[in-house]
This record gives sequence, structure tokens and C-alpha cells, in this order.
Amino acid sequence: MTLHPPRLAHTGLFLGILAFLAALPAAADEGMWLFSNPPKKILQERYGFRADDSWYRHVQQAALRFNNGGSGSFVSADGLVMTNHHVGAAALQEMSTPEHNLLKDGFYAKTPAEEHKCVNLELNQLVSVADVTDRVNAAVPPGSDPVAAEKARRAVMNTLEEESLGQTGLRSDVVTLYHGGRYHLYRYKKYTDVRLVFAPEQDIAFFGGDPDNFEYPRFDLDCCFFRVYENGKPAKIEHYFSWNPAGIRDGELVFAVGNPGHSDRLNTVAHLEFLRDCAFPKMLDQLRRRELLLSIFSRRSKENARRARDELLHLQNSRKARLGGLEGLQDPAVLHARRAEEETLRDAVENDPQLRGDADAWKKIEDALKVSKQILTDHGLLERGAAFQTRLFGVARTLVRLADETDKPNADRLREYRESNLESLRQDLFSKAPIYKDLETVKLADSLSLLAEERGFDDELVQKILAGKSPRRRAAELIDGTRLEDVAVRKQLAEGGKQAVEQSADPMILLARLVDSEARRLRKIEEQQVGEPMQQAYAKIAAAQFALHGTDVYPDATFTLRLAFGVVKGVDVDGVQLPPWTTFAGLYKHSAEHDDQPPYQLPPRWIEHKDRLDLSTPMNFIFTADIIGGNSGSPVLDRNAKVVGLVFDGNLDTLVWDFAFTEKTARSIAVDARALIEALQKIYDAGPLAEELLKGHRGE
Amino acid sequence: MTLHPPRLAHTGLFLGILAFLAALPAAADEGMWLFSNPPKKILQERYGFRADDSWYRHVQQAALRFNNGGSGSFVSADGLVMTNHHVGAAALQEMSTPEHNLLKDGFYAKTPAEEHKCVNLELNQLVSVADVTDRVNAAVPPGSDPVAAEKARRAVMNTLEEESLGQTGLRSDVVTLYHGGRYHLYRYKKYTDVRLVFAPEQDIAFFGGDPDNFEYPRFDLDCCFFRVYENGKPAKIEHYFSWNPAGIRDGELVFAVGNPGHSDRLNTVAHLEFLRDCAFPKMLDQLRRRELLLSIFSRRSKENARRARDELLHLQNSRKARLGGLEGLQDPAVLHARRAEEETLRDAVENDPQLRGDADAWKKIEDALKVSKQILTDHGLLERGAAFQTRLFGVARTLVRLADETDKPNADRLREYRESNLESLRQDLFSKAPIYKDLETVKLADSLSLLAEERGFDDELVQKILAGKSPRRRAAELIDGTRLEDVAVRKQLAEGGKQAVEQSADPMILLARLVDSEARRLRKIEEQQVGEPMQQAYAKIAAAQFALHGTDVYPDATFTLRLAFGVVKGVDVDGVQLPPWTTFAGLYKHSAEHDDQPPYQLPPRWIEHKDRLDLSTPMNFIFTADIIGGNSGSPVLDRNAKVVGLVFDGNLDTLVWDFAFTEKTARSIAVDARALIEALQKIYDAGPLAEELLKGHRGE
Repeated sequence: MTLHPPRLAHTGLFLGILAFLAALPAAADEGMWLFSNPPKKILQERYGFRADDSWYRHVQQAALRFNNGGSGSFVSADGLVMTNHHVGAAALQEMSTPEHNLLKDGFYAKTPAEEHKCVNLELNQLVSVADVTDRVNAAVPPGSDPVAAEKARRAVMNTLEEESLGQTGLRSDVVTLYHGGRYHLYRYKKYTDVRLVFAPEQDIAFFGGDPDNFEYPRFDLDCCFFRVYENGKPAKIEHYFSWNPAGIRDGELVFAVGNPGHSDRLNTVAHLEFLRDCAFPKMLDQLRRRELLLSIFSRRSKENARRARDELLHLQNSRKARLGGLEGLQDPAVLHARRAEEETLRDAVENDPQLRGDADAWKKIEDALKVSKQILTDHGLLERGAAFQTRLFGVARTLVRLADETDKPNADRLREYRESNLESLRQDLFSKAPIYKDLETVKLADSLSLLAEERGFDDELVQKILAGKSPRRRAAELIDGTRLEDVAVRKQLAEGGKQAVEQSADPMILLARLVDSEARRLRKIEEQQVGEPMQQAYAKIAAAQFALHGTDVYPDATFTLRLAFGVVKGVDVDGVQLPPWTTFAGLYKHSAEHDDQPPYQLPPRWIEHKDRLDLSTPMNFIFTADIIGGNSGSPVLDRNAKVVGLVFDGNLDTLVWDFAFTEKTARSIAVDARALIEALQKIYDAGPLAEELLKGHRGE
Repeated sequence: MTLHPPRLAHTGLFLGILAFLAALPAAADEGMWLFSNPPKKILQERYGFRADDSWYRHVQQAALRFNNGGSGSFVSADGLVMTNHHVGAAALQEMSTPEHNLLKDGFYAKTPAEEHKCVNLELNQLVSVADVTDRVNAAVPPGSDPVAAEKARRAVMNTLEEESLGQTGLRSDVVTLYHGGRYHLYRYKKYTDVRLVFAPEQDIAFFGGDPDNFEYPRFDLDCCFFRVYENGKPAKIEHYFSWNPAGIRDGELVFAVGNPGHSDRLNTVAHLEFLRDCAFPKMLDQLRRRELLLSIFSRRSKENARRARDELLHLQNSRKARLGGLEGLQDPAVLHARRAEEETLRDAVENDPQLRGDADAWKKIEDALKVSKQILTDHGLLERGAAFQTRLFGVARTLVRLADETDKPNADRLREYRESNLESLRQDLFSKAPIYKDLETVKLADSLSLLAEERGFDDELVQKILAGKSPRRRAAELIDGTRLEDVAVRKQLAEGGKQAVEQSADPMILLARLVDSEARRLRKIEEQQVGEPMQQAYAKIAAAQFALHGTDVYPDATFTLRLAFGVVKGVDVDGVQLPPWTTFAGLYKHSAEHDDQPPYQLPPRWIEHKDRLDLSTPMNFIFTADIIGGNSGSPVLDRNAKVVGLVFDGNLDTLVWDFAFTEKTARSIAVDARALIEALQKIYDAGPLAEELLKGHRGE
């Protein structure tokens, strides 16, 4: 239960600031490599591994992105998709009811007819990548001031995507790589008819819960299987991963293929210090506050617990991950090493007549960070929505902005309202995912209080937002009064455009309109005075890196498809050498050591059917590949691109990988492919599903 | 589980700022009255209640203060003491071991020999009160500047207390009442040999846990019985409360006698706004952070949960209480009413030639609050110890300061090192209460990180404190390295005085010494530029109140003995009229409604012995008396001063009582005396204890 990238609406405190960084030349098994520039040389030299382009093409096409944050892959010709339970959790939550808690109790469709349609899930298969760097750079003349540059860059990206969508019908995203050193156009085939095939009970998927999260040894069956449909039938898939029933061996080379979310490996030291002293502490305060709020809500009743479950687990996971990241930033050794690297690079830039002109990049970043620090709180509250923690406000804002933005030419729109993104945006906006007004009220009341605490209760905007009431009463009034939980009402407003939105008396629409000018003002500052100058400065640093070290490096993570590699390898913990895998026997032992109490209690069928299992079956294994949040659900492949495992976590020492890679004591963690087959056959009586995995197609 | 005043070391963010306030003239059943000035007129007019001085003297002497925060009373001639389970919780925690978890599983001493001696508990019986206002005022000449005034006032208080201790041998505390309008010398008989007689299981004492805390209807057996010993034998007690086995009636006048901790009912509006926008949000952020930290620690194992239990429950209680307080401050109606009162008073002062000179008091308070706001964070971190959350740092600091302060004349010392307080201070310092190094390390690491987050990691003092390490490593080093968990080491250092402390290489002593000059500097600012000017300003406002409304008012709470009164009365909740008491039958129903799951599971003996109980027995009742945190464990008395109940909580609407009293929907909550007898006899086979309560002495 990790490796989820921050959900945009929740923890995206610095998305705009940080999404454009590149990494240093690789050492050890480091690297989240592009499929357009795979590490062929390193693989051959270090592991004697050679594969032709068809290997890479096959792997790329069999891999999937879960658009709500996570990775997956095709594992049969009949559209079967494998991912983690915790990647599927949001979908499971949305399908659950008080009577059928799929998230907690699991699910298995014995027949195709029983496969359960997801409420709102979009899977992306990467079809092609094109380099559009020249077109982007041509649109942004060198020396443009940041305001013009930001506008011009946004315009050309919106336009490129619209053109591509028109030409191909494929989802088209311009991705900024190497901090602006390169721009690639990614085209995806979208799957939106996704159905649930199998999920285990959460007690075994997330065995050990928060205490064991990011730990090893580990005993989780963190898997979930979906199937994509087209025209009402299981999709026929050309590229899928077949199964290696023999599994991994100690020391073996393996690959992890997925979508790492975000990394900060070439941040300047000043930028890391900003994260350490400002961004991370603020983010963690809000994560803690929201986690505690939902814990308290959940304690009141079983149904409350069910309603808040997925969000609470997500918050716990984020809190533990970010806390690990902060600990990394607070480790003087980490920053010390980065400072030394930075000094070397700056010296080299100063001493190179070609590069000397770019020596001001570090100063530019510091200047931008000063602005970022000034607006951090208000931008987080009003634009990122920390003050309005309810999905109903998100719906209202989207409706308000959709009306405003679609009135403008595509080139001028905010990125998320660009023509090429509207289909995905509407799928989210009109999602029938359940909304529980009691939970929404509790969340909104607390976040309105946060707003009043941060800006002061008597602040003019706060007073307008609260309308003369306490946060608790105002939240109740807003949630009781809005009708936006009704998808038909949303559709009416979306279709009615600006006039309908302006005439709406819905209190949540009125609130979204009330704060929009201030929120947009803050966003503009962030984009023009923080994002753009930093992007330009980081592009200079990247260019210096390329000039000095060549372009055979990987870019920082951007929640796009990457290839990582490493070996299956045990780990030394406080002087004790742990073997590279655990077994089912260890699972039962670990549960007994905790008196079988939560979060170490086993689901009933695991107790009933224990004697059917081969207890020596490897359950989870560790390896050295370079993966981070977003890689959850990535398949682990052998040299023949066959499935030997399923990535679901890293140990605590991987949490520093957001900033710096080390493989001394850090390990990625996967479910062993043999454990999946054994559990499906012996515990879940899901023989047909196991057969489909082993054979690569459904039985008749 | 409420009404605990904030523990000084934990949440005392503003002790220095706020502990000197008085209240408005009483309305309804409002008032926390002094025994030296009881509300005789109101009681006679409203309830026809008349009692002579002996009634008040008897009640005063039978009441007790639990010095670690809470109230209690003598309930037999043989030294039996009644309080709440949650007041006794810290003592229960200290007596617990992995094998015998007294806090969770309860305890009953069938024979006197089995009574379990507490590790560190001091009970105070108020023997006498003397008005020393003239002596204090004479020592602080009018017009003194704040620096001189603060010093002179501290000196005279330290001296008065030392004199009184010398003369009487009694614990002697000068209490500042009515914001400095009056100074009273309180003399207490101390009991330090306190033994545990009976505690129920925490699952029934705190049935419903955090979700039901501060709620009604309620079903808690929140009681605990101790016995005080003198010379190794049960103390012989002259004044104790006898039992009324018939219990309360609806509408009956009742009294609550206890030690309300702290109230802010005559704060200026600016001061309340400071609490709302600065002090409360900061305090709540820290409470949430610490609660979550201990929750996470507790989830790792049963033994972890046991170790952190009392502190975690205390943090949960504080969080819920302070959150309710903040909600009150954020209710515009509350501040609106206060603003109107303040304007009326200020107009009256401006228009009164005698008072006009004091009209600058409000401005002085605003000025002091500006200073307070500036130092709030650093003062909290370094002087209040938010940066060093381990008892071992508290021990180290006390040793360092004890050596420094006892080198000075008594008059010049910091208040807590005054001669008259040293005995109590040493009892705490040398307490053998268990210290768990794993828990202390987790707490210290998190609070050192807080320090680095708040001041910036590269701050000079932070760097000195961390000594080139991450907060986590530094905390481990400090806790592993210190030997202060050994009481003999503490005694050695205390006896060795300044020289021993200065020569000590104990890392925790070195840390306490390192931060002491900055901590003292902040304390001095707080005392001289915040506390003293505010005390002077509030004294002026109080004098204006006395001049305009007479002195027949009660002072704000000061954790000293007070009398509150009210009637047993049901409450309207969202249009539903709830009866004034619950029953055992309701307890079983409430548990079943929650599937008997935590925190609604009943202890085994409550299930086994259910059929023995008279299920119609009233369990908890509500009444209108004005009580707040610190009143926990107060006896509820009838007109004859006989016990009819045991205060343990107020409903959510009482949480605003810290700032303003209202009895519309706010109610105090007590355990019914009949429930105590019924449970002792039928559930716990504790007939002899029930007999002692009913007869007023132990059977032979």
C-alpha cells in the first residue's frame, strides 16, 4: 500500500512547481528510463542483457496507466488487467454499498456476466511518443518575459494536443521532460469500460496495515484484477504479458514497468531546503489533520468507517510516505552530497565560456521560491482547495470554470480545460460515484475552519465565505443546500454554459464563483512568477548537464511510462541479513505474533483453507529497481518479459528516493507471481482466473 | 472522560497569559463560587436554600484536589477517596506492567493489605484561606514599570508562601483572583501516601470512548476509589461526604464541589480573537500531531498500546475539548454578545470620572497580545517544551534549573522553585513512574522535527540542538545516552547542586543547559512584556467591574476549590427532549447498537452478570451546574451535602463554557450514586466497598 502518487486534489501542493526536473547520470540500478531512450548500454554491460526494439515495443504496449494514479498491465489476450488492490481501492470503494463492502470483503466474478462495472475508471495504454521539442521552443521565443512565455507555452501545448486528438482520436498529452529540456507528445488509447474481476479481502491485501506499510519483511496479497471491455465485450488485446510460473531466483535481473509519479532528484539545494522547511511541513500538517478527522469520523460507526475507508487509507499512506521523505530531507548526509554535486556543477558552468551565461539559474530559482513561499498558504487554500475539502466544491468549481474556459479559444485556456482533455474531465465531472453528505459536511467544516485559522477569522474573504456563520454551520448549510450530488443537475449546468452557471442559486456554485477571482489571481502568480521562471532556470541547468555529461540520462518522473531494472536481493537490517522473499508460512507466523488482532487478523478463508496451501510458496520479494509512488501495480518481468511479480511497495529506506537513489538498504517490494496463483487456486477457488493468467487467454 | 484541565507540561501554551481573569455577574445557574464568598443570596432567592457556615466548612474540608489535575472527595471516615477513573488514570498507568494492566483491566483490593500504593500522587485538602491582597499590593507600588512590578510581585508571593509553610507546615499557595483584584493565601493539607482501592475496567469507565466523549446520552462508570494513609495506616477523616442511597430527583437542586481549572470569561474581545486566530489553532495542531503520533505507535503492538494509553487518551480528550472551544470562539453569536458587553463597560468607564484613567486597559492588553503573538511559537517550543517531548528532558531541565534557582534567595526565584514548592517538586522529580525509552524516542524525534520545521532546519540553535544529525538520529542518541531514567542518578545530581550539574556529561543535561538561556530569555519576555502588563490591565478592568456591579461576582477558574449549583434537568437535542438520566438497560442497548465493537464493547463481567443487575437503575444524569475542566471527580451533593453523583463530563455544548455560560442546551454529566452501589455489589462482588460508602466507615 504505497507508491501511489499524490492525488492531485489532495496533496498537490507543488505540482506546478516541481513537475519538470531531470536526474543525474545513473549509478548502480538507478533510473526510471524512457522507452524512447532505454538504458541498453547499461543493461548489456552490467547484466549482459540484450533485447531488440520489438521487446521494448511489446513491453510498452502491454503496460497500462491507471489514470487516477497507479500502474497496471494486460495479462491476457481477453483484456484481463492486473494491478494492486490499493490502486483499485478507489474503484472498489465507489462500487461498495452498506450491504456489499467490496473494498473490505473482496469480490470474485465466477462468470463474465458477474464482472462488476466500475463507476469511473480510465486506463491509458501508451500507443506512441513523438518529440515536439522544436515546435514548443519555436513558439516561445528566447528571452520572452515569463508572462508571455507562460502564455505562449500553454497555447502551443493546448494546440498540439488538440491537433493530435483530431488526427488520431487518441488521448494526447504534451509531457515536459528534463525540466523543459525536451517536450514529448504521448498518445494513449483510453479504456473506460472497466469491470472488476477479482479483489481479495483488504485484510490480506493490506495485511499489517499502517504499521507494516513501507516495511519488510512483508506479507501482502496486494492484487486486483479488472477486465477492459469494448462495445460491451471483453477487449481483444494483442500485447499482454504472459506468466512465468517458475518465478524469480535470487540475484536474477528483473524489470518493473510503470508510471512513477513525481521525483525531485535534480532540485537545487535551495529548492530541497524549501521542501524541507516549508512545503513538506505544511503538507504534513494538513495530511495529519485530515487523517485524524477521518479516523474520528470512522470510529463513530461501522458505516462511517466504510464510507471514509479508501480516503483514510490514502491519507495514512501519504502521511507515512511524506514523513519518510521529510526524514530524508532532514538527513544532513543527503543534502550534504547534493550540495557537493551542485558546487561542482556550478563551478563547471562558471568555467565554461559556453555555459557561463546560464550561471544565474540557481539565483532565479531562489527568487521564484521566495514568491512561492509567500503564496504557499493562500494558494493551497483557495486554488488547490485545501479550504474546501468536499468533492461537491470540486464539482462546483469545475462547472464554473468549464463555462468560463470553454468560452475562450483553446490556446488561451487553463491546461485542464484544453479541448483534448474535456472528454476525460467530463467523465470525472459526471461520475456517479456515491457522495455521503454527512462525511462531506465534516470535511468541509474542518477545512473552512482551517481557512479561518490561516487567514484570520475576520479576514474579508473569510467573512464572505462564512456568510456570518461558524465554519460548522456554514458547512452544513452548503452541503444541505447544494443539489450538485445529482449528476443530472451537473449535466444541466454544464450544458447551460455560462448563463446557466451565472443564474444558478446553488450555494456551492455561488461559493465557487465567490472565490474564483482570488483563486485565479493566486494561480496566475504561481504560474507566471514561480512555475515559468523555475522551468526556464531548470532548463538551463539541464542544458548544462547535457553539455557536460551527455544526454544518456533519464528525466525525473512525470507519471508517464518508464522502465526500471534491478536484481532480486536480500537486505541487511541492523546487522541481520534478511532473505529476498517471505513465504505463506511467515504470514501465519506474523499474524500469530500479533495475537491475530487488527491489522494482523487473517480473513476467515485464509484460516479455513490454510491446510490447502503450500506454505513454502514465496509471498513477497524485494529487488533493487528504482521505483517510486505511481509505480504501484507495475508488473515485475523477467528477461523474457514474463510476469514474475507485482510491485506494491518499497521499504522505509526507499522514501528518500524522491530526492536521491541509494540501493544500500532500500528495496522495492513485490507480490510473488507464484503466491498469486497459489492463493487464487487454493484460497479463492478461482481456478479459471489462475488458468487465464497461466495460459494468456480465457478458457471456454 | 473530560473536564481534565490541560496538563501543564502539555497544553499550557498560555498559562502565563490567562490565569488571572474574573467573570461577569451570574445569570441562571452560572458561577464557580469561592467558599469565602458563597452565593447565599442567589441560592435562597432562587431555590429557597439556606445553610449556615458549618455546611460550607464541612463541604470545603471533605473536598479534595488531585494535584495532577482533577477533583475528588472523602467518602468515609477511613480515608476513602472518590474520583473519576480518568482522573486516576495517570496513577493507574504508572502502576501497570505488561502482565497487570490496571488501567485497562481494573483492580479491586478485597482486603486493606491488597490496596496498591501509587507511585506519585499528591492530594490536597483545603484547610484555610486568608486574604493577602494588601500585602501583595503594598509590595508592588502603583506605577511601577512592568519589569520591577513582576519581580516585586513574584518576590512577595514567594515570601508569603515560605512564611506560611514555616508557620503551619501546610502547603501554601498565593492564588491570584479576579485578575489581580484579590490575592488569597490557600493552605492545604497534603496526602502523598495514596493507595488504590478500586478501579473498573476502562471499557466501562470510558464506554463509548472518543466518539461518545462530551456527548449525552451517556453510559460510563467513570469512577475510581483510593484511600489516603498516614503513618502506614488509613487516615482518620473528620469531614467526609455521606451517601444518599435514594439518589437524585428530576428538577432537584444539586451542588458540584471541585477545582475548575481555567476559564476565560472576562477576556477582552481582542484577547478572545487572539485565542481564536493564534493560540487555539497552534495548540490544536500540536495536539493533533501528538495524538496521531501516539496512535501510530500504539497500533504497532499491544504492549506499545499499553505504554502510550493514558497519554493518548489525555490527548484525545484535550483535542476534543479544545476543538469545541474553538468552535465556540468561531460562533459569531458568542463574540457578538461579548463585544456588546465590552462596549457597554468601556462606555461606562469613559463616562465615569473615577474610572476614566483606566480606559487604556483594553489598549494595553492589545499591545501585550502583539508581543505574545511574536513569541508564541518559540516560547512554546523552547520554554514550554514542545520541542522536547520527553519526560527525560523535563527531568533534565528541572535539575538544571533547580541548581541555578536554589542558589538564589527565595524571593528572586522562578515561581516553581520557590521554597514552599520544593517538596512537591522533588516528589515529581524523583518519581519512579516507569519510562519507556522506545516511546520517549518516538516522541522526542517528532518534537525535534517540529522544532526544525518551525524555526527552519538551518537555524543556528536548531543546528546546535541537532548536533549535525537528523531529528530521528539525534533523539535516539539522546534517549539511549541519558541515564536520567535512574532515580538515583537524578538524586545525585540534585544533591550535587550546580557543580554536579555543570560537570555532568549526560546528553540530556547538556541539552537542557544548551537551550536554557534562550528559553529563559523568552520566559522573561513573556512574564515582563505579556503577563505583567496584562495582569495590570485586567486588574483595572476588574476594578471597574467591581465599582459598577459590586463585588458579588465569582472569579474566573484558577484550579482552586469552587462551589457550583444547578438542577437535574433533561435537554432538548434537535427537537427531541432527552430525559435527565440514562439506565443500565440503555447501556446494553447502546452496546448492541454498535455490534458490541470497540469502543462499545462491554467487559466480560458486565455480560456474565447482566442478569444480576436492576436494569432500571439510573446510570448517568445531567444537570445545569457551571463546571469546566478540572471539575472531573467532583462529588454531586444534595441539599444535605450527601453524595448523589460523581461529575465526569459535560456535553458538547458545555465546551463554550470556557468563554461564556449558557444553560439552554449545555449540561454537566455525572455518574449516578445508585449506579455505583449497584455495580460494586452486583458486578464486582465489592460488597465491603459499597458498605463503606453507605455507612461512612469500613466494616470490621
